[in-house]
Amino acid sequence: MQPSFVELIASKRDGLTLDAESIQRLVTGLTSGALADYQMTALLMAIYLRGMNDVETVALTEAMLHSGSVLNLDHVAGVKVDKHSTGGVGDKVSLCLAPWVAACGVPVPMVSGRGLGHTGGTLDKLESIPGFRTDLTTADFIRLVGELGTCMIGQTADIAPADKRIYALRDVTATVECIPLIVASILSKKLAEGIDALVLDVKVGRGAFMKTETAARALAEALVRVGSRAGKRVSAILTRMDAPLGVAIGNANEAREAIEVLHGRGPADLVHCTRILAREMLRLAGVASSDASADVLLDAALTSGKALSTFEGLVTAQGGDPTMVRHPERMPIAPVRARIVAERDGYILHADALELGLTAVAMGAGRARADQAVDPAVGLAVHTKPGDRVEKGQILCEVHLRDHQAPADFVPRLQAAFTLSDQPVAAHELVLATIRS
Amino acid sequence: MQPSFVELIASKRDGLTLDAESIQRLVTGLTSGALADYQMTALLMAIYLRGMNDVETVALTEAMLHSGSVLNLDHVAGVKVDKHSTGGVGDKVSLCLAPWVAACGVPVPMVSGRGLGHTGGTLDKLESIPGFRTDLTTADFIRLVGELGTCMIGQTADIAPADKRIYALRDVTATVECIPLIVASILSKKLAEGIDALVLDVKVGRGAFMKTETAARALAEALVRVGSRAGKRVSAILTRMDAPLGVAIGNANEAREAIEVLHGRGPADLVHCTRILAREMLRLAGVASSDASADVLLDAALTSGKALSTFEGLVTAQGGDPTMVRHPERMPIAPVRARIVAERDGYILHADALELGLTAVAMGAGRARADQAVDPAVGLAVHTKPGDRVEKGQILCEVHLRDHQAPADFVPRLQAAFTLSDQPVAAHELVLATIRS
Repeated sequence: MQPSFVELIASKRDGLTLDAESIQRLVTGLTSGALADYQMTALLMAIYLRGMNDVETVALTEAMLHSGSVLNLDHVAGVKVDKHSTGGVGDKVSLCLAPWVAACGVPVPMVSGRGLGHTGGTLDKLESIPGFRTDLTTADFIRLVGELGTCMIGQTADIAPADKRIYALRDVTATVECIPLIVASILSKKLAEGIDALVLDVKVGRGAFMKTETAARALAEALVRVGSRAGKRVSAILTRMDAPLGVAIGNANEAREAIEVLHGRGPADLVHCTRILAREMLRLAGVASSDASADVLLDAALTSGKALSTFEGLVTAQGGDPTMVRHPERMPIAPVRARIVAERDGYILHADALELGLTAVAMGAGRARADQAVDPAVGLAVHTKPGDRVEKGQILCEVHLRDHQAPADFVPRLQAAFTLSDQPVAAHELVLATIRS
Repeated sequence: MQPSFVELIASKRDGLTLDAESIQRLVTGLTSGALADYQMTALLMAIYLRGMNDVETVALTEAMLHSGSVLNLDHVAGVKVDKHSTGGVGDKVSLCLAPWVAACGVPVPMVSGRGLGHTGGTLDKLESIPGFRTDLTTADFIRLVGELGTCMIGQTADIAPADKRIYALRDVTATVECIPLIVASILSKKLAEGIDALVLDVKVGRGAFMKTETAARALAEALVRVGSRAGKRVSAILTRMDAPLGVAIGNANEAREAIEVLHGRGPADLVHCTRILAREMLRLAGVASSDASADVLLDAALTSGKALSTFEGLVTAQGGDPTMVRHPERMPIAPVRARIVAERDGYILHADALELGLTAVAMGAGRARADQAVDPAVGLAVHTKPGDRVEKGQILCEVHLRDHQAPADFVPRLQAAFTLSDQPVAAHELVLATIRS
């Protein structure tokens, strides 16, 4: 006889291992209503405190994945590769990465999310391009990945619905920060895209979900192990997220900066982060066997203009105004400007990504609750990085606000996000580790 | 700022201590709906796995207690004492204990529950007396405790409603077997009776909730510690529950046997168990300082007929047929009889309380689910105890069934509940320990 749901909860409570069939029954039970939310949350807390091994996590991932539909990209030639970031401030990498890699001949089907809290979301950034639609049908998505090599949409209702349900429960029961649950949540959504390979950008630091390198590394390793067990080619890159990535924060601001990268410009750290992830995607796709051979492809895609024209094609196909791609300076920007300047000579010790991100949310660039709207045109330009030498009066950060907003409401908070040191400060190393299966 | 519910769940998840105010907010939140069931169950699992200290358990007890109304028995003179059993098979002690102790001058306000699973309930046993009502108003209950010295009713809706809610959630989330939660559940209900002192009969063994002496002792000690911290005089007696208590199983059967005790008859183990608990109640009430002085009072109450007449008064006042008290042989009994006999000579090794109790449930004497009705007249008479020498053909157990019931449906299972040994078996020691504050 099959164990009851209560017996399965008791097994996990007692630190035992759940088999794949039991995990499947629990997830199916949740979506059918046979397992109540209040039973699931007891199980989630038991998982939080007792853990799950990789075999269990694979089973949970696959049960959540198959709670909805899985896209079939078989008719698209090549190894389909996507990238997922655990979220940071100023992280607009997806916008330039997807067309760049697609321009190298590797299909990139990308399903992304919206921003919440201090971390931004790819959908919000894309939608800051006037007219851009992220609510395409699955059929259009599949078609565009075939035609353009990439397409970027939001999560449809039938992608991993069990994950949505479970995530909502974790959010209100203090069971978010649990590696097997995080792994199953990320992988179930990404595997639903019909991909063959996945590169994970696991952010670590003050502006990231994982605050310590130890925790981030554990998550990255689990993602790679579980993803590989689930039959995918998976790598993870550990990158620092103590200060914002690039200069721009705010949706239109960030989209503009991402387009700059496709023009062969853009801030060095953003270009570097994008290239590191792109190299790994090309490696997993089997089109490059080394950083050097990947760079040959990446440089060619940039200098030929193919990366830019791929994004132009994607913007056009998704209803956006393509002139923004050729002329990113035309992206909307809020009119009221204010500046944060260095109050003395010194070295930047902190340009606190969390505080800068939260202030941007307060400005309307992001959302504190999932049902809030965002203003694409407000934002920040953070001109200094940890380690930089600055002189008194030098601009640390510019603010773009709407007419009705008072700079004085935000400037003191932004000023406090920057800490200066009298002693020289070492610049941050962006990439901490690469984890491969 | 007060921590949010999610932060409180996270604190317990991380093994921290919750303060009394936080515990009060959680319980109030549950009853008001501000804390969702699915949040409570995550907290319950965290409590199960991380524990609660005595201070937290007192706070939980008091928060649950004050989620409803607390009876005020101030106008009843004397130290009010009740008894609670953690539940066993054939445990009809409350029916004879309450009038016996009340007849010694100690008020016994008793609020009891119904049977569920293999353990019976006092309310079902009382209601097997034709006409007996356990749904008295609080006002009548208070009045009768004053007039008769005792009254026995069921839990009203306004006694510890948070406990009902929490218990229902524990039952379906594998968080029942958790000492601080058990302690708070028992004590919050009992303290709502307005008592000054409480004796706990903590059963241990195969037919009990606690299967091992270690677990039972831990529960008993926690009950005594927490009850004392909550300002009550509390003792616990550890008693064995491997074989049924007394002879009778089944509601009318058990009521009849309890009445026999008040006549100065009844099976030795039942009388002994009742006397041990009665002595402790008299001790806590301050009317006896030793077993010997308690026995003087108890023997007088029995031989004078006062214990019996107290029960007669209670039955009359609660709408029951008082002739059953003078003539317990008139209690209803199902007509179809079958016998389980020893298949060979030997010594009784096991008369398995759990199996006998579950078979009685299957016969209709108890309920598997809370919404089932019980048949008062079906039951068992278990004539042998572990350690007894039996000869082939000797009656081990008699069964009383309804006309439509087939003995063959139950006899094999009952037969299997008895295990014989060729070697002499030591009789069970009923009382394992007495735990006092």
